[in-house]
Amino acid sequence: MAQKPSIPKGTRDFSPHEVARRNYIIGIIRQQFELFGFQPIETPAMENYDTLMGKYGEEGDRLIFKVLNSGDFLKKVSPGSKSLQDVRELTPLISEKALRYDLTVPFARYVVMHQNEIDFPFKRYQVQPVWRADRPQRGRFREFYQCDADVVGAGGIIQELEFIQLYDRVFTALGLGGVTIKINHRKILSGIAETIGAGNHLTDFTVALDKLDKIGREKVEAEMLEKGIPAEAIEKAAPLFELGGTASKQFSALRELLSRSTTGMEGVAELEEILSLTEALGLESASCKVDITLARGLNYYTGAIFEVAAPETVPMGSIGGGGRYDDLTGIFGLPGVSGVGISFGLDRIYLVMEALDLFPASLEQAVEVFCLNFGKEEARAALRLVLRLRSRGIRADLYPDQAKIPKQFKYADRKKVPYVVLIGNEELQAGTFMVKDMATGEQQAYDLEQWESFSRLLKP
Amino acid sequence: MAQKPSIPKGTRDFSPHEVARRNYIIGIIRQQFELFGFQPIETPAMENYDTLMGKYGEEGDRLIFKVLNSGDFLKKVSPGSKSLQDVRELTPLISEKALRYDLTVPFARYVVMHQNEIDFPFKRYQVQPVWRADRPQRGRFREFYQCDADVVGAGGIIQELEFIQLYDRVFTALGLGGVTIKINHRKILSGIAETIGAGNHLTDFTVALDKLDKIGREKVEAEMLEKGIPAEAIEKAAPLFELGGTASKQFSALRELLSRSTTGMEGVAELEEILSLTEALGLESASCKVDITLARGLNYYTGAIFEVAAPETVPMGSIGGGGRYDDLTGIFGLPGVSGVGISFGLDRIYLVMEALDLFPASLEQAVEVFCLNFGKEEARAALRLVLRLRSRGIRADLYPDQAKIPKQFKYADRKKVPYVVLIGNEELQAGTFMVKDMATGEQQAYDLEQWESFSRLLKP
Repeated sequence: MAQKPSIPKGTRDFSPHEVARRNYIIGIIRQQFELFGFQPIETPAMENYDTLMGKYGEEGDRLIFKVLNSGDFLKKVSPGSKSLQDVRELTPLISEKALRYDLTVPFARYVVMHQNEIDFPFKRYQVQPVWRADRPQRGRFREFYQCDADVVGAGGIIQELEFIQLYDRVFTALGLGGVTIKINHRKILSGIAETIGAGNHLTDFTVALDKLDKIGREKVEAEMLEKGIPAEAIEKAAPLFELGGTASKQFSALRELLSRSTTGMEGVAELEEILSLTEALGLESASCKVDITLARGLNYYTGAIFEVAAPETVPMGSIGGGGRYDDLTGIFGLPGVSGVGISFGLDRIYLVMEALDLFPASLEQAVEVFCLNFGKEEARAALRLVLRLRSRGIRADLYPDQAKIPKQFKYADRKKVPYVVLIGNEELQAGTFMVKDMATGEQQAYDLEQWESFSRLLKP
Repeated sequence: MAQKPSIPKGTRDFSPHEVARRNYIIGIIRQQFELFGFQPIETPAMENYDTLMGKYGEEGDRLIFKVLNSGDFLKKVSPGSKSLQDVRELTPLISEKALRYDLTVPFARYVVMHQNEIDFPFKRYQVQPVWRADRPQRGRFREFYQCDADVVGAGGIIQELEFIQLYDRVFTALGLGGVTIKINHRKILSGIAETIGAGNHLTDFTVALDKLDKIGREKVEAEMLEKGIPAEAIEKAAPLFELGGTASKQFSALRELLSRSTTGMEGVAELEEILSLTEALGLESASCKVDITLARGLNYYTGAIFEVAAPETVPMGSIGGGGRYDDLTGIFGLPGVSGVGISFGLDRIYLVMEALDLFPASLEQAVEVFCLNFGKEEARAALRLVLRLRSRGIRADLYPDQAKIPKQFKYADRKKVPYVVLIGNEELQAGTFMVKDMATGEQQAYDLEQWESFSRLLKP
């Protein structure tokens, strides 16, 4: 019996309509990455089990898809062995490979393996799918693309300035004005934790703080308490939740709060410099603002951190984020490689652009000129015309069978073709073709040998 | 202890240099696909186990990578069960998903699942990686890209003509002239098998014949004999190996040989029509010729079949192939969907282009203008210039740290940057920048406010 096919939950098929829109976004991101001097690399979908395991915490380890060894995958397991009843013991015995979980660990692995071929500073970008065995829900999938750009082997704050510009340029080029690039500095967060007496709980502190937007102040404070941060420390952090006003007021308040923390003061100074230089350089359509509650979950950030919020009219979480890290590759035996990186959230950007109707209508027009098929001889003349138009860079096509003309028209109509070409017997005899403008309904005849004058309508 | 990282055997990292070259090829293939009216779809890397298994023969089933179920994958296996000792029994109990093995089965599954949204004839292309647990060897990998275009729901021979044109246009656009598009027809092969009395061994006959180029006539005959094809049938097939001369001579010989086979004669007539129309339409840089020994391994072809051979100067197997099939989707419950499809062999095309030195030198220039970093203030002026150049579509970059100038020059040199920009203290004071043409060594000063006149050098 024939199977009724389906696809694994949390994965997606993309129709031509969706691929065109996704590729439009990816194309603009890639183009800006390249204008900014980033170069593409690609890494395999499968990494060694050991490369990935232990890099994303216990939760991450569970969410990594493992690939069963080929052939006799039980050969390392003796029959009746206890491992056969223990999933954790059995997994590494029957699986040597796993699907990549993000692009950062493979990038770190790449840098270490190819360190002798790489000229540092190394600016790489990578746009590839990743896989996570997360519970699927709206906007969260088990296969999704990440679009990352990182520079490794560069200090200073030029790169931080560059990434803010890059965000601005990408969203401007996408027509998505009004995004907010929120910035903060990990050293400020360390300084605060130190100052209020929660220095031993820096991670818990930042992880809880990161949720402020989503769950509100009360729940953040409850989480901090639950994680063992003393109540008096949380109380001392109160000014943090109330920091508002202009950037310069925020910086004054921070300098006062952090005056005894060297780390904190370093963070304030750097953040202030980044902000003032960004103002001096100017942004095209985004705005940049300090957000002291911005923490970003990932532990490896050590300097400036970024997050991009969609325009306020669209309720959506962050559509991009990143930051500076001190040690990307230590875990693979190459210490001291610092860098900065950012990433774009393709799926969310897609949803925002859809909500704001920002995709160009031309993406819907796969074919610009479509010839109807009136019969064998007519179709051959049409095919010759189609081939000529294509050689001029015009997307042209011909209905492959001699179906009824209304059916062919309907097909062209559903494809949103702007120009339909008719070569019936009459036209064939006269050596002409008739062009119907589908928007206006107007028709115009051209000499077949004068096809170039028609092509110039579309490609002047 | 730090791990010494590696990647799974048969997989590859692609450096910026390689990605640029691969994307160049893929970009041209995609562009021509779209000019020909094909639209992209994408399917998930993981398909359900049942979707893939049993579609590629026993050998194929073994070469499919299975993905271990997440969480407690042993929950369907009772402790001590016999399945725990039998890989074949155990696999479907602990694995519900597998990595796609080609793009054809996922496409068939897609067509069936989305049949109500699709307007037929449906012209789709798909460029995505596939995975096979094959033994890795030169030119054969466990992860590789397939680039497929198919039309389903269209009969006639217009599509066959179109695919020959598509091959010609792609290889012409790649600068890879002189490829040979070999064509044959499955009905001719059926007719021959029928005529010589090997009709029951059609698959064995075509599979053996397909190897003629690689292993020679004697070994092909030996394989046929071994598969149970009678010696007298093989003897009768002798004219097949000797068919030469012009196409019209070949067709005459075939018509004589196949005069009693209706199927065979249909194949001859159709192939002759395809060839004569292709000659009438003309090809840009490829040639098209009939090759009666072309069989193509895949069983599902039923009409015209194609294979593209690299120019004779490069020893390489086929760099593309395809054909017409009668029933793509029957296995998923939708019978009667016929179509034609072709595919491009990315890895082999890459090797041929490399051997013939056909990649444009500009692919090596990731960055067109590179500014040296002479210090804090100078770098800020350089950053402003760099941002302006990028806004004009020029790939420009700035060394992020204040390293020694010879080191920065060397970096620019290794990146093959054509123009290096110097803004030292002197230039900063004068409000100028110095451009060094790295090919000629010549230097020219520009006013910083006149940056557009420099930009017009690169983007007129």
